[in-house]
Amino acid sequence: LTPTMLAALTALAGMMVFTTSGSAQGDGEAAPIYGVKLPADYRDWTLISVASVGPPVSDMRAKLGNDVAIKAYRAATLPFPDGTIIARLAWKQTVSQENNRAIGPMAEKQLGPEGAQKLLSQSFIAGPPINVQLMVKGSKKYASTGGWGFAQFNDGQPADSAVHKTCFGCHAPAKDRDFVFTRYSP
Amino acid sequence: LTPTMLAALTALAGMMVFTTSGSAQGDGEAAPIYGVKLPADYRDWTLISVASVGPPVSDMRAKLGNDVAIKAYRAATLPFPDGTIIARLAWKQTVSQENNRAIGPMAEKQLGPEGAQKLLSQSFIAGPPINVQLMVKGSKKYASTGGWGFAQFNDGQPADSAVHKTCFGCHAPAKDRDFVFTRYSP
Repeated sequence: LTPTMLAALTALAGMMVFTTSGSAQGDGEAAPIYGVKLPADYRDWTLISVASVGPPVSDMRAKLGNDVAIKAYRAATLPFPDGTIIARLAWKQTVSQENNRAIGPMAEKQLGPEGAQKLLSQSFIAGPPINVQLMVKGSKKYASTGGWGFAQFNDGQPADSAVHKTCFGCHAPAKDRDFVFTRYSP
Repeated sequence: LTPTMLAALTALAGMMVFTTSGSAQGDGEAAPIYGVKLPADYRDWTLISVASVGPPVSDMRAKLGNDVAIKAYRAATLPFPDGTIIARLAWKQTVSQENNRAIGPMAEKQLGPEGAQKLLSQSFIAGPPINVQLMVKGSKKYASTGGWGFAQFNDGQPADSAVHKTCFGCHAPAKDRDFVFTRYSP
Protein backbone atom coordinates (compact mmCIF):
# COMPACT_ATOMS: atom_id res chain seq x y z
CA LEU A 1 0.00 0.00 0.00
CA THR A 2 1.74 3.18 -1.15
CA PRO A 3 1.13 6.53 0.57
CA THR A 4 -0.84 7.70 -2.47
CA MET A 5 -3.09 4.65 -2.38
CA LEU A 6 -3.51 5.01 1.37
CA ALA A 7 -4.53 8.62 0.91
CA ALA A 8 -7.04 7.61 -1.75
CA LEU A 9 -8.56 4.94 0.48
CA THR A 10 -8.74 7.33 3.40
CA ALA A 11 -10.50 9.84 1.19
CA LEU A 12 -12.86 7.12 0.02
CA ALA A 13 -13.77 6.24 3.59
CA GLY A 14 -14.35 9.92 4.36
CA MET A 15 -16.53 10.37 1.34
CA MET A 16 -18.59 7.31 2.17
CA VAL A 17 -19.48 8.96 5.46
CA PHE A 18 -20.14 12.24 3.69
CA THR A 19 -22.34 10.79 0.97
CA THR A 20 -24.50 8.74 3.34
CA SER A 21 -26.48 11.76 4.36
CA GLY A 22 -28.68 11.80 7.38
CA SER A 23 -27.03 8.88 9.11
CA ALA A 24 -25.46 11.04 11.79
CA GLN A 25 -27.44 12.91 14.40
CA GLY A 26 -26.26 16.39 15.29
CA ASP A 27 -24.60 17.50 18.48
CA GLY A 28 -27.50 19.59 19.72
CA GLU A 29 -30.18 18.90 22.30
CA ALA A 30 -32.66 16.07 21.68
CA ALA A 31 -36.33 16.97 21.28
CA PRO A 32 -38.72 15.67 23.99
CA ILE A 33 -40.76 12.45 23.80
CA TYR A 34 -39.03 10.95 20.72
CA GLY A 35 -35.45 11.97 21.52
CA VAL A 36 -34.72 13.15 17.98
CA LYS A 37 -31.77 15.48 17.34
CA LEU A 38 -31.39 17.85 14.43
CA PRO A 39 -29.04 16.14 11.94
CA ALA A 40 -25.97 18.24 11.25
CA ASP A 41 -26.34 18.05 7.46
CA TYR A 42 -30.10 18.30 6.96
CA ARG A 43 -29.86 21.58 5.04
CA ASP A 44 -27.91 19.78 2.30
CA TRP A 45 -30.52 17.07 1.74
CA THR A 46 -32.40 16.65 -1.52
CA LEU A 47 -35.70 18.41 -2.12
CA ILE A 48 -38.85 16.29 -1.93
CA SER A 49 -41.36 19.05 -2.66
CA VAL A 50 -42.58 22.52 -1.67
CA ALA A 51 -45.84 23.79 -0.18
CA SER A 52 -47.42 26.76 1.54
CA VAL A 53 -50.13 27.22 4.16
CA GLY A 54 -52.57 30.12 3.88
CA PRO A 55 -53.30 32.94 6.32
CA PRO A 56 -52.93 33.35 9.24
CA VAL A 57 -50.16 30.72 9.15
CA SER A 58 -48.83 32.25 5.90
CA ASP A 59 -45.75 30.16 5.42
CA MET A 60 -43.58 28.76 2.64
CA ARG A 61 -42.36 25.21 3.07
CA ALA A 62 -39.73 22.90 1.69
CA LYS A 63 -39.53 19.21 2.45
CA LEU A 64 -36.07 17.70 2.27
CA GLY A 65 -35.13 14.04 2.59
CA ASN A 66 -31.98 12.16 3.55
CA ASP A 67 -30.63 9.56 1.12
CA VAL A 68 -32.85 6.79 2.52
CA ALA A 69 -35.94 9.00 2.14
CA ILE A 70 -35.15 10.11 -1.42
CA LYS A 71 -34.38 6.59 -2.56
CA ALA A 72 -37.67 5.36 -1.08
CA TYR A 73 -39.66 8.21 -2.63
CA ARG A 74 -38.17 7.64 -6.10
CA ALA A 75 -38.80 3.90 -5.89
CA ALA A 76 -42.28 4.47 -4.39
CA THR A 77 -41.31 2.25 -1.45
CA LEU A 78 -43.99 2.04 1.25
CA PRO A 79 -43.66 1.83 4.18
CA PHE A 80 -40.54 4.00 4.31
CA PRO A 81 -37.50 2.02 5.50
CA ASP A 82 -35.93 2.52 8.91
CA GLY A 83 -33.47 5.39 8.78
CA THR A 84 -35.72 7.57 6.64
CA ILE A 85 -35.67 11.19 7.79
CA ILE A 86 -37.90 13.86 6.30
CA ALA A 87 -37.31 17.50 7.23
CA ARG A 88 -39.94 20.18 6.79
CA LEU A 89 -38.48 23.69 6.74
CA ALA A 90 -40.86 26.65 7.01
CA TRP A 91 -40.32 30.35 6.45
CA LYS A 92 -42.66 33.31 6.75
CA GLN A 93 -44.34 34.29 3.44
CA THR A 94 -42.84 37.59 2.40
CA VAL A 95 -43.61 39.97 -0.47
CA SER A 96 -40.38 40.91 -2.19
CA GLN A 97 -40.52 44.59 -3.13
CA GLU A 98 -37.36 44.26 -5.19
CA ASN A 99 -38.70 41.29 -7.15
CA ASN A 100 -41.99 43.10 -7.67
CA ARG A 101 -40.27 46.22 -8.95
CA ALA A 102 -38.48 44.01 -11.48
CA ILE A 103 -41.49 42.07 -12.74
CA GLY A 104 -44.06 44.84 -12.19
CA PRO A 105 -43.75 46.57 -15.59
CA MET A 106 -44.10 43.31 -17.51
CA ALA A 107 -47.00 42.20 -15.31
CA GLU A 108 -48.78 45.52 -15.83
CA LYS A 109 -48.27 45.35 -19.59
CA GLN A 110 -49.76 41.89 -19.79
CA LEU A 111 -52.44 42.02 -17.09
CA GLY A 112 -53.28 45.70 -16.60
CA PRO A 113 -52.89 47.54 -13.29
CA GLU A 114 -55.44 45.53 -11.31
CA GLY A 115 -54.24 42.19 -12.65
CA ALA A 116 -50.64 43.11 -11.95
CA GLN A 117 -51.52 44.19 -8.42
CA LYS A 118 -53.22 40.85 -7.80
CA LEU A 119 -50.25 38.89 -9.09
CA LEU A 120 -47.68 40.94 -7.17
CA SER A 121 -49.57 40.96 -3.87
CA GLN A 122 -49.85 37.18 -3.97
CA SER A 123 -46.26 36.50 -5.02
CA PHE A 124 -44.09 35.38 -2.14
CA ILE A 125 -40.54 34.55 -1.27
CA ALA A 126 -39.30 32.80 1.84
CA GLY A 127 -38.72 35.32 4.63
CA PRO A 128 -37.48 34.68 8.16
CA PRO A 129 -37.30 31.01 9.21
CA ILE A 130 -40.19 29.73 11.35
CA ASN A 131 -39.04 26.26 12.37
CA VAL A 132 -37.83 22.86 11.21
CA GLN A 133 -39.83 19.69 11.78
CA LEU A 134 -38.55 16.15 11.37
CA MET A 135 -40.03 12.69 10.90
CA VAL A 136 -37.60 9.86 11.67
CA LYS A 137 -38.51 6.28 10.79
CA GLY A 138 -37.74 3.62 13.36
CA SER A 139 -40.32 0.87 13.09
CA LYS A 140 -39.44 -0.73 16.43
CA LYS A 141 -38.28 2.29 18.40
CA TYR A 142 -41.40 4.27 17.51
CA ALA A 143 -43.84 1.37 17.12
CA SER A 144 -46.53 3.13 19.17
CA THR A 145 -46.62 6.12 16.79
CA GLY A 146 -46.76 4.39 13.43
CA GLY A 147 -43.02 3.78 13.37
CA TRP A 148 -42.20 7.49 13.31
CA GLY A 149 -40.46 9.78 15.74
CA PHE A 150 -41.26 13.48 15.46
CA ALA A 151 -39.37 16.63 16.34
CA GLN A 152 -39.64 20.38 15.99
CA PHE A 153 -36.75 22.81 16.31
CA ASN A 154 -37.07 26.56 16.59
CA ASP A 155 -33.80 28.24 15.70
CA GLY A 156 -32.01 24.96 16.36
CA GLN A 157 -33.59 24.43 19.80
CA PRO A 158 -36.19 21.69 20.42
CA ALA A 159 -39.76 22.82 20.98
CA ASP A 160 -41.48 21.78 24.20
CA SER A 161 -43.25 18.57 25.05
CA ALA A 162 -46.74 20.00 24.40
CA VAL A 163 -45.83 20.69 20.78
CA HIS A 164 -44.52 17.17 20.30
CA LYS A 165 -47.70 15.61 21.65
CA THR A 166 -49.64 16.99 18.67
CA CYS A 167 -47.47 15.53 15.87
CA PHE A 168 -48.71 11.98 15.46
CA GLY A 169 -52.41 12.85 15.70
CA CYS A 170 -52.13 15.24 12.77
CA HIS A 171 -50.37 12.62 10.64
CA ALA A 172 -52.88 9.85 11.39
CA PRO A 173 -55.09 10.66 8.34
CA ALA A 174 -52.14 9.80 6.07
CA LYS A 175 -51.93 6.26 7.46
CA ASP A 176 -52.33 4.66 4.04
CA ARG A 177 -49.16 6.48 2.94
CA ASP A 178 -47.19 5.53 6.03
CA PHE A 179 -48.31 8.75 7.78
CA VAL A 180 -46.49 10.98 5.27
CA PHE A 181 -48.54 13.67 3.54
CA THR A 182 -45.92 15.03 1.16
CA ARG A 183 -45.50 13.44 -2.26
CA TYR A 184 -42.33 13.72 -4.32
CA SER A 185 -42.34 16.43 -6.98
CA PRO A 186 -40.31 15.53 -10.09
CA LEU B 1 -2.61 -3.30 -6.46
CA THR B 2 -4.95 -6.07 -5.25
CA PRO B 3 -8.44 -6.49 -6.76
CA THR B 4 -9.95 -5.15 -3.54
CA MET B 5 -7.85 -2.00 -3.66
CA LEU B 6 -8.57 -1.57 -7.34
CA ALA B 7 -12.28 -1.84 -6.64
CA ALA B 8 -11.96 0.75 -3.88
CA LEU B 9 -10.12 3.17 -6.15
CA THR B 10 -12.64 2.67 -8.92
CA ALA B 11 -15.42 3.40 -6.46
CA LEU B 12 -13.53 6.48 -5.29
CA ALA B 13 -13.26 7.79 -8.84
CA GLY B 14 -16.95 7.18 -9.38
CA MET B 15 -17.87 8.96 -6.18
CA MET B 16 -15.73 11.94 -7.02
CA VAL B 17 -17.78 12.42 -10.15
CA PHE B 18 -20.96 11.91 -8.16
CA THR B 19 -20.08 14.32 -5.38
CA THR B 20 -18.91 17.14 -7.66
CA SER B 21 -22.45 18.03 -8.55
CA GLY B 22 -23.28 20.12 -11.56
CA SER B 23 -19.95 19.72 -13.27
CA ALA B 24 -21.35 17.48 -15.97
CA GLN B 25 -23.89 18.58 -18.53
CA GLY B 26 -26.62 16.12 -19.42
CA ASP B 27 -26.99 14.19 -22.64
CA GLY B 28 -30.07 16.03 -23.85
CA GLU B 29 -30.52 18.77 -26.41
CA ALA B 30 -28.88 22.17 -25.78
CA ALA B 31 -31.15 25.17 -25.36
CA PRO B 32 -30.93 27.89 -28.05
CA ILE B 33 -28.77 31.04 -27.86
CA TYR B 34 -26.69 30.04 -24.80
CA GLY B 35 -26.22 26.34 -25.62
CA VAL B 36 -27.00 25.20 -22.08
CA LYS B 37 -27.96 21.57 -21.46
CA LEU B 38 -29.98 20.26 -18.54
CA PRO B 39 -27.46 18.77 -16.06
CA ALA B 40 -28.17 15.11 -15.39
CA ASP B 41 -28.12 15.50 -11.62
CA TYR B 42 -29.83 18.88 -11.06
CA ARG B 43 -32.73 17.33 -9.14
CA ASP B 44 -30.28 16.24 -6.43
CA TRP B 45 -28.82 19.71 -5.86
CA THR B 46 -29.16 21.58 -2.59
CA LEU B 47 -32.07 23.92 -1.96
CA ILE B 48 -31.37 27.65 -2.14
CA SER B 49 -34.90 28.86 -1.37
CA VAL B 50 -38.56 28.62 -2.34
CA ALA B 51 -41.03 31.11 -3.80
CA SER B 52 -44.40 31.40 -5.50
CA VAL B 53 -45.91 33.71 -8.10
CA GLY B 54 -49.54 34.81 -7.78
CA PRO B 55 -52.43 34.38 -10.19
CA PRO B 56 -52.69 33.89 -13.13
CA VAL B 57 -49.18 32.38 -13.06
CA SER B 58 -50.04 30.54 -9.81
CA ASP B 59 -46.89 28.53 -9.37
CA MET B 60 -44.73 27.08 -6.61
CA ARG B 61 -40.99 27.38 -7.06
CA ALA B 62 -37.82 25.86 -5.71
CA LYS B 63 -34.34 27.15 -6.50
CA LEU B 64 -31.58 24.56 -6.34
CA GLY B 65 -27.86 25.15 -6.69
CA ASN B 66 -24.90 23.00 -7.67
CA ASP B 67 -21.96 22.77 -5.28
CA VAL B 68 -20.31 25.91 -6.67
CA ALA B 69 -23.53 27.88 -6.26
CA ILE B 70 -24.23 26.70 -2.71
CA LYS B 71 -20.67 27.38 -1.58
CA ALA B 72 -20.87 30.89 -3.05
CA TYR B 73 -24.26 31.58 -1.46
CA ARG B 74 -23.12 30.42 1.97
CA ALA B 75 -19.94 32.49 1.76
CA ALA B 76 -21.86 35.46 0.29
CA THR B 77 -19.45 35.46 -2.66
CA LEU B 78 -20.34 38.00 -5.34
CA PRO B 79 -20.03 37.80 -8.27
CA PHE B 80 -20.80 34.08 -8.42
CA PRO B 81 -17.78 32.08 -9.64
CA ASP B 82 -17.64 30.45 -13.05
CA GLY B 83 -19.30 27.06 -12.92
CA THR B 84 -22.18 28.26 -10.77
CA ILE B 85 -25.49 26.78 -11.90
CA ILE B 86 -28.82 27.79 -10.38
CA ALA B 87 -31.93 25.80 -11.29
CA ARG B 88 -35.43 27.16 -10.84
CA LEU B 89 -38.08 24.43 -10.76
CA ALA B 90 -41.73 25.44 -11.02
CA TRP B 91 -44.92 23.47 -10.45
CA LYS B 92 -48.57 24.46 -10.71
CA GLN B 93 -50.10 25.60 -7.39
CA THR B 94 -52.55 22.90 -6.34
CA VAL B 95 -55.01 22.68 -3.45
CA SER B 96 -54.59 19.32 -1.75
CA GLN B 97 -58.02 17.99 -0.80
CA GLU B 98 -56.45 15.20 1.23
CA ASN B 99 -54.24 17.60 3.19
CA ASN B 100 -57.20 19.91 3.75
CA ARG B 101 -59.38 17.08 5.03
CA ALA B 102 -56.62 16.30 7.53
CA ILE B 103 -56.02 19.83 8.81
CA GLY B 104 -59.59 21.10 8.30
CA PRO B 105 -61.03 20.11 11.69
CA MET B 106 -58.15 21.70 13.60
CA ALA B 107 -58.30 24.82 11.43
CA GLU B 108 -62.04 25.15 11.98
CA LYS B 109 -61.67 24.71 15.72
CA GLN B 110 -59.06 27.46 15.91
CA LEU B 111 -60.27 29.88 13.22
CA GLY B 112 -63.99 29.21 12.77
CA PRO B 113 -65.56 28.13 9.46
CA GLU B 114 -64.71 31.29 7.49
CA GLY B 115 -61.17 31.48 8.81
CA ALA B 116 -60.60 27.82 8.08
CA GLN B 117 -61.97 28.22 4.57
CA LYS B 118 -59.57 31.12 3.93
CA LEU B 119 -56.59 29.14 5.20
CA LEU B 120 -57.48 25.98 3.28
CA SER B 121 -58.25 27.73 -0.01
CA GLN B 122 -54.88 29.48 0.08
CA SER B 123 -52.84 26.44 1.10
CA PHE B 124 -50.97 24.92 -1.79
CA ILE B 125 -48.82 21.99 -2.69
CA ALA B 126 -46.74 21.55 -5.83
CA GLY B 127 -48.84 20.04 -8.61
CA PRO B 128 -47.79 19.16 -12.15
CA PRO B 129 -44.35 20.46 -13.21
CA ILE B 130 -44.33 23.63 -15.33
CA ASN B 131 -40.70 23.95 -16.39
CA VAL B 132 -37.09 24.17 -15.24
CA GLN B 133 -34.98 27.28 -15.81
CA LEU B 134 -31.22 27.50 -15.43
CA MET B 135 -28.62 30.22 -14.97
CA VAL B 136 -25.06 29.10 -15.76
CA LYS B 137 -22.12 31.34 -14.88
CA GLY B 138 -19.39 31.70 -17.49
CA SER B 139 -17.89 35.17 -17.21
CA LYS B 140 -16.10 35.01 -20.56
CA LYS B 141 -18.43 32.76 -22.53
CA TYR B 142 -21.47 34.84 -21.60
CA ALA B 143 -19.77 38.23 -21.22
CA SER B 144 -22.46 40.02 -23.24
CA THR B 145 -25.22 38.91 -20.84
CA GLY B 146 -23.66 39.70 -17.49
CA GLY B 147 -21.63 36.50 -17.46
CA TRP B 148 -24.71 34.28 -17.38
CA GLY B 149 -26.16 31.79 -19.83
CA PHE B 150 -29.87 31.07 -19.51
CA ALA B 151 -32.01 28.08 -20.38
CA GLN B 152 -35.56 26.85 -20.03
CA PHE B 153 -36.65 23.24 -20.35
CA ASN B 154 -40.22 22.06 -20.61
CA ASP B 155 -40.48 18.37 -19.75
CA GLY B 156 -36.75 18.04 -20.43
CA GLN B 157 -36.90 19.71 -23.86
CA PRO B 158 -35.43 23.17 -24.47
CA ALA B 159 -37.89 26.02 -25.00
CA ASP B 160 -37.63 28.02 -28.22
CA SER B 161 -35.39 30.92 -29.07
CA ALA B 162 -38.07 33.57 -28.40
CA VAL B 163 -38.33 32.44 -24.77
CA HIS B 164 -34.56 32.61 -24.31
CA LYS B 165 -34.39 36.17 -25.65
CA THR B 166 -36.42 37.38 -22.66
CA CYS B 167 -34.21 35.96 -19.87
CA PHE B 168 -31.44 38.49 -19.47
CA GLY B 169 -33.68 41.55 -19.69
CA CYS B 170 -35.75 40.34 -16.74
CA HIS B 171 -32.64 39.75 -14.65
CA ALA B 172 -31.09 43.15 -15.38
CA PRO B 173 -32.69 44.84 -12.31
CA ALA B 174 -30.72 42.47 -10.06
CA LYS B 175 -27.40 43.67 -11.49
CA ASP B 176 -26.05 44.65 -8.05
CA ARG B 177 -26.47 41.01 -6.97
CA ASP B 178 -24.84 39.59 -10.09
CA PHE B 179 -28.26 39.36 -11.81
CA VAL B 180 -29.57 36.80 -9.30
CA PHE B 181 -32.84 37.62 -7.54
CA THR B 182 -33.02 34.66 -5.18
CA ARG B 183 -31.36 34.88 -1.76
CA TYR B 184 -30.36 31.85 0.27
CA SER B 185 -32.85 30.76 2.95
CA PRO B 186 -31.19 29.27 6.04
